[in-house]
Amino acid sequence: MTLELPVVESIDDAALAARLQHLLDHKTKPLGALGRLEALGLRLGLILGSEAPAFSAPQMLVCAGDHGLAARGVSAYPSDVTWQMVENFLDGGAAVSVLARQHGLALTVVDCGVRHDFALAGPREGLRILKIAPGTADASAGPAMSIAQCREAIANGMALVRELPGNALLLGEMGIGNTSAASLLLARLAGQDIDACTGSGTGLDAAGLARKRGLLREVLALHADAGTPLTALAAFGGFEIATLVGAVLQAAEERRVIVVDGFIASAAVLVAQALRPHVAQRCVAAHESAEPGHRLLLEALGLEPLLKLDLRLGEGSGAALAWPLLDSACRILREMASFESAGVSQRET
Amino acid sequence: MTLELPVVESIDDAALAARLQHLLDHKTKPLGALGRLEALGLRLGLILGSEAPAFSAPQMLVCAGDHGLAARGVSAYPSDVTWQMVENFLDGGAAVSVLARQHGLALTVVDCGVRHDFALAGPREGLRILKIAPGTADASAGPAMSIAQCREAIANGMALVRELPGNALLLGEMGIGNTSAASLLLARLAGQDIDACTGSGTGLDAAGLARKRGLLREVLALHADAGTPLTALAAFGGFEIATLVGAVLQAAEERRVIVVDGFIASAAVLVAQALRPHVAQRCVAAHESAEPGHRLLLEALGLEPLLKLDLRLGEGSGAALAWPLLDSACRILREMASFESAGVSQRET
Repeated sequence: MTLELPVVESIDDAALAARLQHLLDHKTKPLGALGRLEALGLRLGLILGSEAPAFSAPQMLVCAGDHGLAARGVSAYPSDVTWQMVENFLDGGAAVSVLARQHGLALTVVDCGVRHDFALAGPREGLRILKIAPGTADASAGPAMSIAQCREAIANGMALVRELPGNALLLGEMGIGNTSAASLLLARLAGQDIDACTGSGTGLDAAGLARKRGLLREVLALHADAGTPLTALAAFGGFEIATLVGAVLQAAEERRVIVVDGFIASAAVLVAQALRPHVAQRCVAAHESAEPGHRLLLEALGLEPLLKLDLRLGEGSGAALAWPLLDSACRILREMASFESAGVSQRET
Repeated sequence: MTLELPVVESIDDAALAARLQHLLDHKTKPLGALGRLEALGLRLGLILGSEAPAFSAPQMLVCAGDHGLAARGVSAYPSDVTWQMVENFLDGGAAVSVLARQHGLALTVVDCGVRHDFALAGPREGLRILKIAPGTADASAGPAMSIAQCREAIANGMALVRELPGNALLLGEMGIGNTSAASLLLARLAGQDIDACTGSGTGLDAAGLARKRGLLREVLALHADAGTPLTALAAFGGFEIATLVGAVLQAAEERRVIVVDGFIASAAVLVAQALRPHVAQRCVAAHESAEPGHRLLLEALGLEPLLKLDLRLGEGSGAALAWPLLDSACRILREMASFESAGVSQRET
């Protein structure tokens, strides 16, 4: 298939930024006293192109897929957990289900390539089947997916976001083994040493982590020629990351606010940013994960995380936890009084 | 007046803590993967004495008062801003008004000793008049308040909380000059050097900060004999801090969750904790402020802040911003599925 990637233009707008800063500076508070919430409000105003930014119909998108590399023992959990957790998302019992419910986030779960046939149980509310294959191939033996599969998954993500309403997209994922894919993408696209990019994921012990690092170093060497964003994504996987890449690109073109979750969601943004360099302007980093590569990844994207709570769950759980802060930043711009309107004295000069 | 302080017993309950930890460990996520949110859930379960903690009718209490020391130029803003901001709270235009509205927090504003007669405008929805005097005396000339006034303000705070419904109390304050009182209380009660306890408050420049530090050192020396929590509070003020001390003590006795805001609210908790050593068990630190003494204060209380967003506004704004995280931690305990109930495979051993 041919794949036409979205055009993602710069949203730098010095005049709007100046108007937003003026508004923030005249709210009834000492200059800058709301700290990073003010910078967040400015960013959200720029993304949404408004001096009174407001969210509508925020969408939590959880993309799931399995990884051939998981058979090599890179995770503390068996691959079956991927489909079992998809069922848990749909049943409302997972962390992201609970948090999405708390904050009124519409939850869409996508089978991008899970090793399980969800259709057997009939159509499920909130589940989309956009399956490329039942799991990627083993990246330690060859590419995780073909270039055609990679393009198809990206196109799926783009189409999916076109169908979703609203002006904010929160990124989530599920896939046993997918911290390995994220580590490999970070190492290749940001030029980082693979050991620094690799952590314990869902909870490997020290020996397990050492094995994972050794294996990922081999996989990286095997695909030494996969140097472009698309060839690297195809080489390392997975289907859920590629679908997220498409979703991020489409959301960026439409100037939706993209709320980045943890290590794997950030890796998808890294690929999208490598393809379209203004993507990160639309992104807000929800949190810095306990997975050590996440800090490197956020630095590569130039994003400063809002929360640092030692989360390492994925699913979009960190994005959902940070969501009220984004809403607060918009409300501060829309609803707070100015010194003039409230009749409050300015500082003594 | 005589003042009977509440009895605040330890809520250490090893059996309940073990049950809560067991529940958290069997939720459908890798062990500990929700990081500090899990520790928060455990703490909230202990405070509320429940394996399924749930908040009801959370109360944002904003105590306001003026400071005689403000005439010595310790703030970048004139004292009139205190009453003007009280009006702004009531009109819904202040940061805490916006955030309380966002999160469904009932907002009560208390005139504990503002230099303004709010009664002239008639009764106001959401305003309580518990005024000790129109501002404290100048602490650089003598005690900010008498011991009798100090006791009266504490009793006011206790009575106020007894009347408020719900099981969570969020602390807020307003008072031009009150970072000075907080710095003095921290220096005296935690034995810290006054320079380390003193910051720019609402935005002093370097020269202003140097003057503030010099003045506070003199004030501290003038009241060298004010060594107990009550005599220090009377010496340094203010009425809003003393009222908060009473509110915190009453909330602690009733095992309400106390959500601590910034530097000044934390200073009230420090006094309450010095009076009743199990108070801090009931507290959650919402954030670490940009005011440098706040870190020292939180360390003295043994509290780890949830957010670090360079806030320095007070009002309860940081407590309101962190509120959804507390609610999330309770919902995780109440609503997340276990591995058994969701049919999800455990980790491979």
